[in-house]
This record gives sequence, structure tokens and C-alpha cells, in this order.
Amino acid sequence: MASESGKLWGGRFVGAVDPIMEKFNSSIAYDRHLWEADVQGSKAYSRGLEKAGLLTKAEMDQILCGLDKVAEEWAQGTFKLSPNDEDIHTANERRLKELIGETAGKLHTGRSRNDQVVTDLRLWMRQNCSKLSTLLWELIRTMVDRAEAERDILFPGYTHLQRAQPIRWSHWILSHAVALTRDSERLLEVQKRVNVLPLGSGAIAGNPLGVDRELLRAELNFGAITLNSMDATSERDFVAEFLFWASLCMTHLSRMAEDLILYGTKEFSFVQLSDAYSTGSSLMPQKKNPDSLELIRSKAGRVFGRCAGLLMTLKGLPSTYNKDLQEDKEAVFEVSDTMSAVLQVATGVISTLQIHRENMARALSPDMLATDLAYYLVRKGMPFRQAHEASGKAVFMAETKGVALNQLSLTELQTISPLFLGDVSHVWDYGHSVEQYAALGGTARASVDWQIGQVRALLRAQQP
Amino acid sequence: MASESGKLWGGRFVGAVDPIMEKFNSSIAYDRHLWEADVQGSKAYSRGLEKAGLLTKAEMDQILCGLDKVAEEWAQGTFKLSPNDEDIHTANERRLKELIGETAGKLHTGRSRNDQVVTDLRLWMRQNCSKLSTLLWELIRTMVDRAEAERDILFPGYTHLQRAQPIRWSHWILSHAVALTRDSERLLEVQKRVNVLPLGSGAIAGNPLGVDRELLRAELNFGAITLNSMDATSERDFVAEFLFWASLCMTHLSRMAEDLILYGTKEFSFVQLSDAYSTGSSLMPQKKNPDSLELIRSKAGRVFGRCAGLLMTLKGLPSTYNKDLQEDKEAVFEVSDTMSAVLQVATGVISTLQIHRENMARALSPDMLATDLAYYLVRKGMPFRQAHEASGKAVFMAETKGVALNQLSLTELQTISPLFLGDVSHVWDYGHSVEQYAALGGTARASVDWQIGQVRALLRAQQP
Amino acid sequence: MASESGKLWGGRFVGAVDPIMEKFNSSIAYDRHLWEADVQGSKAYSRGLEKAGLLTKAEMDQILCGLDKVAEEWAQGTFKLSPNDEDIHTANERRLKELIGETAGKLHTGRSRNDQVVTDLRLWMRQNCSKLSTLLWELIRTMVDRAEAERDILFPGYTHLQRAQPIRWSHWILSHAVALTRDSERLLEVQKRVNVLPLGSGAIAGNPLGVDRELLRAELNFGAITLNSMDATSERDFVAEFLFWASLCMTHLSRMAEDLILYGTKEFSFVQLSDAYSTGSSLMPQKKNPDSLELIRSKAGRVFGRCAGLLMTLKGLPSTYNKDLQEDKEAVFEVSDTMSAVLQVATGVISTLQIHRENMARALSPDMLATDLAYYLVRKGMPFRQAHEASGKAVFMAETKGVALNQLSLTELQTISPLFLGDVSHVWDYGHSVEQYAALGGTARASVDWQIGQVRALLRAQQP
Amino acid sequence: MASESGKLWGGRFVGAVDPIMEKFNSSIAYDRHLWEADVQGSKAYSRGLEKAGLLTKAEMDQILCGLDKVAEEWAQGTFKLSPNDEDIHTANERRLKELIGETAGKLHTGRSRNDQVVTDLRLWMRQNCSKLSTLLWELIRTMVDRAEAERDILFPGYTHLQRAQPIRWSHWILSHAVALTRDSERLLEVQKRVNVLPLGSGAIAGNPLGVDRELLRAELNFGAITLNSMDATSERDFVAEFLFWASLCMTHLSRMAEDLILYGTKEFSFVQLSDAYSTGSSLMPQKKNPDSLELIRSKAGRVFGRCAGLLMTLKGLPSTYNKDLQEDKEAVFEVSDTMSAVLQVATGVISTLQIHRENMARALSPDMLATDLAYYLVRKGMPFRQAHEASGKAVFMAETKGVALNQLSLTELQTISPLFLGDVSHVWDYGHSVEQYAALGGTARASVDWQIGQVRALLRAQQP
Repeated sequence: MASESGKLWGGRFVGAVDPIMEKFNSSIAYDRHLWEADVQGSKAYSRGLEKAGLLTKAEMDQILCGLDKVAEEWAQGTFKLSPNDEDIHTANERRLKELIGETAGKLHTGRSRNDQVVTDLRLWMRQNCSKLSTLLWELIRTMVDRAEAERDILFPGYTHLQRAQPIRWSHWILSHAVALTRDSERLLEVQKRVNVLPLGSGAIAGNPLGVDRELLRAELNFGAITLNSMDATSERDFVAEFLFWASLCMTHLSRMAEDLILYGTKEFSFVQLSDAYSTGSSLMPQKKNPDSLELIRSKAGRVFGRCAGLLMTLKGLPSTYNKDLQEDKEAVFEVSDTMSAVLQVATGVISTLQIHRENMARALSPDMLATDLAYYLVRKGMPFRQAHEASGKAVFMAETKGVALNQLSLTELQTISPLFLGDVSHVWDYGHSVEQYAALGGTARASVDWQIGQVRALLRAQQP
Repeated sequence: MASESGKLWGGRFVGAVDPIMEKFNSSIAYDRHLWEADVQGSKAYSRGLEKAGLLTKAEMDQILCGLDKVAEEWAQGTFKLSPNDEDIHTANERRLKELIGETAGKLHTGRSRNDQVVTDLRLWMRQNCSKLSTLLWELIRTMVDRAEAERDILFPGYTHLQRAQPIRWSHWILSHAVALTRDSERLLEVQKRVNVLPLGSGAIAGNPLGVDRELLRAELNFGAITLNSMDATSERDFVAEFLFWASLCMTHLSRMAEDLILYGTKEFSFVQLSDAYSTGSSLMPQKKNPDSLELIRSKAGRVFGRCAGLLMTLKGLPSTYNKDLQEDKEAVFEVSDTMSAVLQVATGVISTLQIHRENMARALSPDMLATDLAYYLVRKGMPFRQAHEASGKAVFMAETKGVALNQLSLTELQTISPLFLGDVSHVWDYGHSVEQYAALGGTARASVDWQIGQVRALLRAQQP
Repeated sequence: MASESGKLWGGRFVGAVDPIMEKFNSSIAYDRHLWEADVQGSKAYSRGLEKAGLLTKAEMDQILCGLDKVAEEWAQGTFKLSPNDEDIHTANERRLKELIGETAGKLHTGRSRNDQVVTDLRLWMRQNCSKLSTLLWELIRTMVDRAEAERDILFPGYTHLQRAQPIRWSHWILSHAVALTRDSERLLEVQKRVNVLPLGSGAIAGNPLGVDRELLRAELNFGAITLNSMDATSERDFVAEFLFWASLCMTHLSRMAEDLILYGTKEFSFVQLSDAYSTGSSLMPQKKNPDSLELIRSKAGRVFGRCAGLLMTLKGLPSTYNKDLQEDKEAVFEVSDTMSAVLQVATGVISTLQIHRENMARALSPDMLATDLAYYLVRKGMPFRQAHEASGKAVFMAETKGVALNQLSLTELQTISPLFLGDVSHVWDYGHSVEQYAALGGTARASVDWQIGQVRALLRAQQP
Repeated sequence: MASESGKLWGGRFVGAVDPIMEKFNSSIAYDRHLWEADVQGSKAYSRGLEKAGLLTKAEMDQILCGLDKVAEEWAQGTFKLSPNDEDIHTANERRLKELIGETAGKLHTGRSRNDQVVTDLRLWMRQNCSKLSTLLWELIRTMVDRAEAERDILFPGYTHLQRAQPIRWSHWILSHAVALTRDSERLLEVQKRVNVLPLGSGAIAGNPLGVDRELLRAELNFGAITLNSMDATSERDFVAEFLFWASLCMTHLSRMAEDLILYGTKEFSFVQLSDAYSTGSSLMPQKKNPDSLELIRSKAGRVFGRCAGLLMTLKGLPSTYNKDLQEDKEAVFEVSDTMSAVLQVATGVISTLQIHRENMARALSPDMLATDLAYYLVRKGMPFRQAHEASGKAVFMAETKGVALNQLSLTELQTISPLFLGDVSHVWDYGHSVEQYAALGGTARASVDWQIGQVRALLRAQQP
């Protein structure tokens, strides 16, 4: 009889077992990652039971002590799973019972796996989000430090991958760092919603035994408690939000990786990855491939896939707990691991990247100053639309003549507009060009410095 | 020659035109929705140009007045598009020029379509998010009002779609309302990031002409300015966030719709949609189908699809502006329209839904009190695990005998545990059952009242 | 120096190593699943090299023999990975070298990991698709057998989850079986495109040493060879197709699971899962949850997530091999495992499901015959639209009077239409009703038998 | 009373109407695209009714004639929608009734909108898939023609975006053309499954009135009939398959676009888009942006989003018709339009693209021959692994000395291996290099010719 196997729901089931179903149903292979959170949650819950008079002080102490031993076994790698341990909750309670006897059977009073598992997951995620925040800050800080150190280097800014205007190299770095500060801000918001206690919600109707949820909250240091027990046990918004946070963050990192892959081609030759982040070819001896960047880029797909998969699963459900929700944990664990690795590799890549400033300088070309040429005319009073057209004519003239834009003679320029005078020669200085872009957020040195200050202030504000 | 056609970039292009490409490239068919935002943005920008000395006061007034006329034409439906108006920005400036002459050519000074279009989109979304917030609050309020009015009605709570425990009908309503409060909170966060000004970023390098972005911000009432011009013109985080916000909100509404579709089946018969939200069958005269709920459910897929599509597009891009970003607008417009309709229909459904309280009451069955039976034993001192097993045995015994759980005699129960005494009869009262679940978030009346209070307080806090 | 570590690209790299990058880059943790395919591919390739004169017969024999030993070690679980084995290809060749010495260094001549890995993956998938085909056929066969055995059982057919018309239970089973036959057909098409040989494509330019790809194809029993070496090494259409195949198949299985979950609720009570596919509650002793079905339903999300993730990764790539493609394998392995488990569990569920025919019969109600009532009038010559309206009036009349549709008296019916005569009583026979639907594909017995014959014929045609 | 409004299900509904719900529910705004298919389907169905004795020959002729008039009105743009026309089926039948009177009410006999709408959609898609096939063949043909004409042009092949080996430009073109042939093959498979007749399935149970589905099939020229009426009315596999087909095809076109965008950068300068497919900048006069290619790239996201959205909607459904399925049509229409435009623009781009062969030639560099250098040693008997390492040392030596690989003296090379002799100089000829890759699928001229022949043969085989 199934009840003899000691399964939690014992006493009722009759019938054979399909081993494939057993394995299909079991989550211990991955939810064992929650062992620490599960012990933490159970310790707090036993305190709640004691306060509610459902455990004596002695029973509580026995349970607390037993749970500490369970934790110790996990920490030391000596915890032995039994074949009936289908999930971490069953495993820990089974072991607790072996260690302290029947009193263990009081721990689950008024609790359900529905509120237990989501409490464990929130505890795990809370800690993990903190770790990811720290890694993200480290990456941003590395980028800002680098931006500060290299802010006098100019290179081409591209739009549509076409050379657009000269910019500071630091302006490029900061464009990615600024995007990451939004991820950092969003992660704090996700954490706020992760940090809400569902324990004390039972399976659906709530807790009937006078357990003080405010005490549980304080014990586990949550920021708030969930408002509705049906919602609390089945909503996975915080998981979906986390997965989407990761997807958007990966989109940013993928974009930076894409830029760097391009800048590291022979054709651009602006940057070179350190050997630690490159790989060779099994066939072509001359090759050094940007595998680190390609892997970062690829992980965006994987992480988004987890987000899309969970959303599809959630979308098809009626309310309250359904076993479908078991899909949440592997998604969270995998994405957390991926983010951790990606953030660290990205930090390594940025901090060891070599740049070729001569190539950057060489890539600046006078046609990139065509906009500035138009502004020259604007400053002389020509409406911008006419100035844009005049500058376009100059570009066309230079192309037709096969010379660089700055090699058109003044006479030639004057055939386009009499407003061109000798001082047009100042336009052709790249350093002069970037300094014009002095509005906040632009590529002038003061503006870049302002950006650095702003990002540093954000980092300071976000860190606890 | 192409320059003759008056295209913005005139003066350079030579070559024929592919009409399919023209249509493929044109966005006026949908970005015309931005007409008001585009005028607003241009008015603020012309004030910035005047302050920077690039426009005289008279020129500025001329432009402002012209832009007002443009807006009036749109508002009155008299604005006439010309075949070369490929987008709303071109159209408005073309018309402005027709109205005020060459001065119009000064408006775009230092501005790019890259910073212009994203400013317009943010203005549009800011207003639209406010509208959606209001519709969402209205839905939540309707739900809370209903929950308050009907909180004495009990019906079965389900987990895994199996009858679990008796709960209050209001507890079910609130479980969905509480989920929606998270959507409401998240929408405010999205709005915060929408409400940041990119204008003054130019195409990539920033603004070179001394335009005061802080003035532009104040003119347009934005909360902050973007930090980096390269990021500002190409990041679409706020769009992705909005689309994901909508996807998650739709998941909640789909879940509620799914519950109601089930509760409205002949088999459940708990609720009945008002005729206004049902549809008949072209073949089967007796049918009344919950089309409104099915459409709500289906839109979750559509909205998610837009989110997934945009993320895939964003993911494959290098940094700065690429034409791929043109995909953002249709996604935003379609999803906004969908959300607006869905929220209003959901409010209508909830406010007109009939409930069958006798059916709800009839659906409660003694086996749903098996957990309470276990708690009875727990209160007599039996560890929960044993009590759970004992209650399971009682369920099995009742099933075997073919009687309801509450029809087992005391003698029969005592064969399972001697702790069963005459007072076990109190267990079988559903009203008594729900009142046990008095911990915060549970289904007891006081706890439901607390939830109502909490949600009302949240609504008050969120409204401006 | 890095060359000392024996990495494949030795001889060039200088610089330290980031352990996180090493782990990030390494694929051996999962691509070890390819060990057998890798050995197979290498054996064929060494035959190709021998024919091309790049290996002597003796060298080839030495390599073949060594590869057999490698395979034996994997099969017996004695293969020992070394820390430098970053992928299965490196590991196997490293081991081969240990076993047979320098000749091993000739095996990779003209081959690249780019064509090697995709050959291995295709070999693995070809075998795995066959296994999945067999499991799918087994599921379909189980369904058809059951449909044949139970074809005299009637129950309500639902549309919009509202009772629609009486149908045969077998008609429901077959509706799902027929959907699965399309999956089966599609899987064969995927297999056809999996079964194409890329080996001999090198890294990008092709094979320069006279290796006969037709010989390789024949050795490995592929159906065709790839046409272009650049495409061959980087296209993953066959992976995307497989993942989409699985997603669509899971959608079908999820839909069947959804139906069964509903039919297994207390309210419907048409079916009961065997204990082997149910699970109890840790809190509620009376519960028996359809965990198997919920897990099937949930896996649809997971599988789709993998499909979406891979597509996003593929979408962002330029042509030819990029390391991003490394994401393909985990997706394939995970989805294959999931499909295998799901198909087997679904077969178990269907073959052990209990049905409650009395409940099914009881759930048929006269209002479900309203369409037939309309057809009664149609047969008497009334245009369908009028007949539909007349029948609708009868439904309304019955509802208003609070009686069942078949309890309206003839006199009452005649107030709606004089065409109603005494023979209208035949309409109320459910068995008579279903037999009307005799067009091919309908629910009449002959039509159901025809369906069974059609599906059996398809299965026979698909099996090799 | 609602029945007065003449809605299809008339006679029963009581209650007010929510205008937002009306609009939400209505599909006429988009399903009007189906007008022709709807008329076609109805004409065939009326023939079926006549054969079954449900229409007299005269009635049938009246209906056929009326339907022709309806079609004529649509074709001429004179069809007037009435406010109650919620979908195309209602609209057409309403108009038919106005034209021919009560006989129109017989047309829907035994038919349901469930089988009607899916028949219409299949008819529409069948035609549309043919059009897309033709456009796809045209694109492939253009590519093959170009590949044939330009097969003597060499340029660098890249992997990981790093210069890898010299290849023929035609080899690159063909790598994309070959990918598209798989799309073409898949589209034919999708069409096969589109081309199956569901008409005669009714709403769920089938057709009860002796309508001969085989006659309907023949009338409408479908390849087969659906097997099960429940499945037939609700499965949308063919829609999901079509959307996935489009997604994968777009992935290929996006990849080609990505390559061309890169090759069109200043840094690569291999290709130049014709003006017809480029756009200028509103700010920067010198710019010419590859908007056509960026739009192609972006559409991959949009199309995939539709696929993901529909799958999510389908995934959450129980079996048989639910209103959620209404989402299928907009997805199909939008994706069809997008594919049509993208395929034509891509054909235009390819056929007008200018290539810079001198730049292509200049970009070839001796280090790209390092693999050939290794093969040189292999041909002298050195195992490939050693040869690869030796070649790697040569690359390192050249880098260290700051010379090109082919500028190492024989003496220097001999310090690496004594196998280097005077004939090593032949290695440095790019033309010689590519001709080595003569295995099928490689970049040698004969192999490229073989590819051209293969693709042409495929095209011939696929065209009807």
C-alpha cells in the first residue's frame, strides 16, 4: 500500500506506479538548490507555531535544532536523498523526522507545500538578486572607470552602421553603461516585489491556526506580506518579472557584444579582445575568435526563451496552484546562473580589452563633418534645411571630384553658398567638432564628465 | 532628380524608386497617431532654439503659430497628406513650410528625426499610460466594490481544478484584484521611465548649438532628461517594458477569464454572463457563448506576441539608431488599443455578471472539510502529519462505504483515532470553516475586510 | 604557454585564463551526449581520408580500432574527462591520441569542428527522432484502440466550453489522435531535413583534399549531402524545425490534457485518472490532483521557450559559423527528453484512464438537441435561418417556463411553428441524434469507424 | 429586443449592448479580406445542398446567382457594410438575403460558422501561399543568376566575423539561396496541409444532412478532406505552420540583410545599395543608410511575434472551437503582406546591388591562407594537428616580426619545419587556394557550378 511508502499524502492511494511518471513528477533534481531557504523558512514557521501555541517551547527547540542539523548535512555534502524524496520539502522533513522523531510531524501544521515552496523560492531569489545586483554594479563601475580614463580618445560614431559623426570613445562606453543603470534600477524594483512573504497562506484558504504572519515576516526579514492567500500561492509575477528583467538586460549586453565584435573585425580594428576571452580555430591557425562576446550574445536568446516559456505556461492557467507552476524553478536557476556568468565575463572583457587608438583616429573622415558644415552655415544665418541641402551638395561635389570633403577649395564651396568664408577651415578639426556637442548628454568633454558623475551618483544611490 | 521631390535629405540621391520599397519604408500610415505629440515637441523645441539665439522671438512666434494651425488641421480632420510625406515629422514640417514659408526650415536645427521620433513616442505613451492606469483602477475598484457587497457568499475553492476548501466568493474576486494592483504598481514604474526627455540628443553626438535641455524638459513636463545621446536615440527599454507590462497584465486577465468561463459552464453554473457580453451560435439555438471572456483570453497571446517580436528585433541590433526601430510604434499603438478595450470589457463583464449563490452553496461538499478534520485532531494534540493521515483514512472509509465524509458515525471515526469526540460535528459547518482562516490574507470575514481595506488604500496611494 | 596545455589551436595564444570564461565556453557538460555520434562520424571520415590517400590503410585501421576503444569506454562509463576537454570532439581526439599516438593527429585533416559538430548533432537527432516517432505512434495507437473499444459511449460535445451537441466519446478521442497524426507526418518531414550530411564542408570554404562526400554520405547512411559549405556549417533550420515541431505537438497534448483535467473535475466527473498518474495534497487529505496532466500542459511552455530562444539567437546572426550556435544542443537534448517523457506519460494516462459512462450519459440534456430541432423543421421545408430562430424560441419558452426543452408540449411548440407534429418526439433520442452526423468526419458510428480506419492506415503508411 | 436586429442567433437575447464589446467582438474590419473565399465556399456548399436534396435546382441557381452579385459588389467596391455585419459571413449572407429573399436562409443549412470560417481561411491561404512561392522563386532565381554571372570574383569568407578563408562571391550568394530553397520546400509542405477541406464539419458533431464532402472537396479543388469534425473546426496547425515558416524564412533574409549591411559599411566597402533601396539622414548630409535591409531585418521580429502570439493563444485552449481562434486571421493577413513586401524588396536589393571587386580583392590577406599552409605540410606527410600547430607558429612569427605571413623567408619557415621548401610560394595565390576546395559544396569553380545546377533543378522541380 502506498501509505507505507511514507509519502506525504499517505493513507489513501492504491495502485501501481509508473517510473517515468515518478521521474516526470519529481523535482528534487533541481529544487535541492532551495535547501537553505527551505530550512530557513521552516525555522521561522516553527517559531510561528510556538507563538500560536501549536508547539511547546521544547518542541520548537527540538525542531530548530534538528533543522540546523539538516542544514549542516546539506552544507557538508553529507545529506543523503532517499528514493521517495520527490522534492526538497519532503526530503528535509523526512530527514528531520529521522533526526528528531514524531515531533517533526508538527512542523507542517497549517502549512501547505503551496505556500512553502513559493516562500523558499522568494528567499532564494532575494539573495540571488542581491548577488546579481552587485555583479551588475561591478560591471558598470568598470565601464565608468574606463570611460573616465580614456575620454580623450575620439573615434567614429555610427548610425545604421554608417559613419555618422566623430564621438568620444568614452561616450560609446557610457551609452552602454547608462543602459545598464536602467537594468540596475529595474532589478531593485523586481527585488521589492520578490521580497514579500507568502508563508501563512496555506494551500488556498489561508492559515487557520492563529499563526502570526507579521512575526513570520519579521523572522524572515521580508518587506511585506502577501494580501490574498489564493493569489499568494499561485502568482508568479515576480518570476516572470525577473526573467523579463534578465531578458532586457541581456539585450543590452548582446548589443554591446555586437558592437565589440564589429569593432574587433579586421576591417574596423578598433579593439582587440584579450586572449583570455578569445578562442582559436581547430582548422584555421591564424584565427582568434571573439567567443566570449558571441556567447554573451547568444545567451540573450536562451534567457528570453525561458521568459517566453514561463509566460506561456502561466497564461494557460486558471487561478490558484496548479502543478504547471513547478516549471518556475528551473527557469529561475538557469537564468540566474547565466546572468552571473555573463556579467562576470562581460566585466572581464571590458577590463582587459585593448584599444587601437591610432586606428580609431584614422577612421575619422571629413565627410563625417558634413553636419558640422551645415551648422557652419546655420551659424551664419542660413535656415537649417537649406544648410543641410548645401552641405549635401558639397558632399556630392567632393564625391564627384573624387576628393575628400575638406579638400574642396573655398571657391568651390562658394559656388554652393556665398556664406562660406575662410573660417570654414575650422570645421575640419575633429577635436573642435566634438566639443560643440556640449548640451547635457552630448559628446563634449564636459558633457561626458557630467555623465560619469551621474552614473556614479546612481550607483551610490542604489547600493545599500 | 530626387532632390526635386523635396525629400528631407535632398541634393544627393540619384536613381529610380521602387514603389514597394517606398511603401515598405513609409510609416505615415500609423505614425500619424503621433501628430499631437509631434506638434507639442516641435513647439517646445522652437522655444529652446529661441533661447539659444537660433531663432528670433518673431521667428519663434511665427513657428508656434504655424504649428498651432497644423494641429488644428489634424484635430479637424482637414490635414491633407502629400505623397512624399513618408512620416508624421516630414508631413508636419512640410505643412508648416507651406503655412509660414522658409522660417520653417529653421525648426529642425540641431535636431534629428532620431531624437524627434522618440520624444514624440514618449509623449504619446505618457498620456496613454495615464489613460490605461485610470481604466485599470476602475476595473479594480469595480472588483473591490463587488467583493465588499458579496462577502457572505461561500463557494468551493479549487486547486488543480479539484475542489479544495470552502472560501468566500469575495476572496476569489480579491485574488484577481490583488494581482491587478501589482500591474497598476508596475505601470507607474514604466511611466516613470517613459517620462524622460531625449530631445536634444541629435542623431548620435548630442546637440551642438547650446539648446538648454532642462528648458525643453520643463516645457514638456518630463520628469528627467536622458543621460547619453547615443543611448537616448536608440534605446527602447520603455517600449519593451510597456509591452511586457501589458503581457503580464493580460496573463492576469486571461486567468480571471478562464476561471469565469469554467464557472459559467453548465457543470459549474456559478456565474452567468450578461447578454451584453455573450454571443449566440449560428448553428445551435440554445447556446450562449462567453465570447467576451474568450477574446480577453486570446488577447494575451496577441499582446505577448508583440512583446516577443519587439524583443527579437531589439536583440539583433548594434547600438545607436537603426531603421529596425521603426517597428516600435505599431506595437505600442496596437497593444494600447487592445489594453484599453480589454480593461473596459472586463469591467463591464464583472459589473454585470450574475452569480448563482444556491449553486455555489450546493457545490460545497463535506470532503472539502477533510483538512479541517485533520486540524480538529491537531487541536487535540496530534501531530499534523498523523492527523493528515487519519483524515485521509476517514476520506477513504467514506468513499469505500459510499457515504459523505460527514456521514461517518463517531464510532467509525474512532476506529481511526480515539481523539474523535462528539464535538467533531462542528467541523461540518462551512461558515465555521471559513472563519478559521483568520490569518491576514485568509478567507475569514475579517481577513477579507482587511484585504478590501488594503486594496482601497493602494488605489488611493496610486492616484495622482 | 598555452600551447603546452595541448589545446587544439595551440602554438599561438599567450595570456592568462579566466576560469569563469573557461566554464562559460566549455560545452562538454552537455555535448558528451554526442559521444556515439562523434565516434561514428570520425570513423566514416577516416574512411574518407583513406580513400583520398591521406591515410594509409594501416593508419585508418589504427584509427578505427582506437575509435572503437573510445566508444567502448563511453559505453562502459570508464571514459575519463580531462580538464582541458572543452567539448566532446576534443575529448575523443585527445583520448584517441593517448590510445594510438600521433596518427590520431591525422584524423582532423580537412575537417573543422564546424562541420564535425553539426554532423554529430544530425546523427544524434536522426536516431532520436526515430525514437520519438515510435513513441508518438504508440500513443496514437493506444488512442485509436480505445476509441474503437468505446465507440458506443455518448457524452456532451462542447464548444466555447458550453454544451453543444451529443457526440461519441470516441469522436473526442479521435479528434486528438487525428491532430497527432499531423505531428507524426511533420516529424517525418523534419527527419528528412535532418538526414542530410554536412561533413566535408570544412570551416567555411569546403574540403580541399579530395574527400569524397558521397562516400561519407553512404557510410553514414544520410539521405543527401548539403549543397553549400557556408550554409552547411551554420544553418540550424533542422534544429528550429524540430523545436517547432515539438512546440506544436505539445500544444496538442496540452489541449488534450486540458480537456481531461476539466472532465476529471468533480463538476464534470466524466473521467478519473489512475492513481499512478495522480498525486495527493500535502495539506488536503481528500484531494487527488491530476499532476501528470498539469505537467504535460506545462511542458508546452518550456518546449516553446526553447524554440523561441533558439530563433532569437539565430535571428541576430550574420552568416557562417558563430559561437552563438553552441546554444543549439542543450535545446535539442532538453526538448527531446521532455518529449520522450511526455509521450510516454500521455500513453500511460490514456491507457489507464477510467471513464464514468453513467455521468457522461447523465450530462446529456435536451437543450443540446436544439439544433436537431431546427433540422426537424428544415426537413419539413423551413429555411434553416427560420428554423434556427424557431428552435431558439422553443429554447426561450422552455427556459421561461422552467422546463426541459423536450418537455414542451406539442401545442406549445405549435405556437412557434405549425410544422411541429407528433414525430418531433423522435428528436429527443440522443442515439438517434448522433447517427444523423453521418458525413465523413462526423460523429455517427460509421463515420467514427471510417476515422479509425483512416488513422490506422496513416500509421501503417508512416512506419518503415 | 435583440432578435429584431436580425443577428444570426436571433430570437433569444435580451439585454443591452456594450459598444466597446461590439467592436471588440466584430471581425469585419479584417475578415472582409475573405470575401472572395467566402463566396467561393458558399457556392460550393449550395451545390452540396442541392445534391443532398436540401435545395432545389432552382433555389441553388438563385443562390449561385445571388452570390455572384455579392462578389461583384465586393470586386467593384460597391458592397455596403451594415452596422450589424459583425463578420464577412454575416455580411455576405445578409446581402444575399436582400438580393434573393428568403431562399438565402437555406444556405447555412447544416453549416456552422465554425466550419465556414476555417474553409474560407484555407482557401485564402492556399492562393496566398502560391503567390509567396512565386515571389520566393523569383528571389532565388535572381540570386542564382547573379551567382552565375559573378563567379570569378573572390573575397574574404568570414567565420565569427573574423577573416577566415578566401571564397568566391558567388559562394556567398549561393549560401543564402540554398537556405531559401529549404523555405521553398517547406512552404510546399505547409500548402499541402492548408489544402484540406473542413467544410461539412458543422460546429462540432459533423454534417447531419447527407452533404457529400467529397463533392465539396472536388468543387473547391482541395487535396483532401479533414478526418474529424471536432478537430477540423478548431485546429489551426496550418496557421501556426505558416507563421513559423515565415519566421524561419525571415531569419534567413535577416541574416542576408545583416551580411549586406556589414559589407556595405565604409570599413568593408564590398557592396553598395542602389539609391532606390537607401535613405538619407535628416541631419547628416553625407549619409546613405541601408533602410531596406534594416527593415527586412526588423520584420523577422514582427513575424516571429505573430507566430509566438498565436501559439500562446492556441496553447491555452481546450479542444473544439473557442472564440480565441478569431486571432488567427489578422496574424495571417499581416504576415502574408509582410512576406510579400520583404521578398520583393529583397529581390530588388539583390538585383541592383553594386559590388566593389577591387575592395573585395584588396581585403584578401595572406594570413587567410594559414590553413592552406598547414595543408601544404599535410601534403608533405605531416599529421594535420602538427601542421596546424606549425602554421600557427608561422602566423605568430609573422605577427612578431610585423610582416605579412607570405613575407616570411623560406629560412624562417624552415626553423618551424624542414618540410617547407621552395614550392611553398604557390600557397600564396588566392585563385589557387579556392580551387582546392573542390569537394561538392565547396568554393572551387566546379563546385560552385554544381551548386548553381542543383538549385536550378530544385526550382524546376518545385514549380507546377
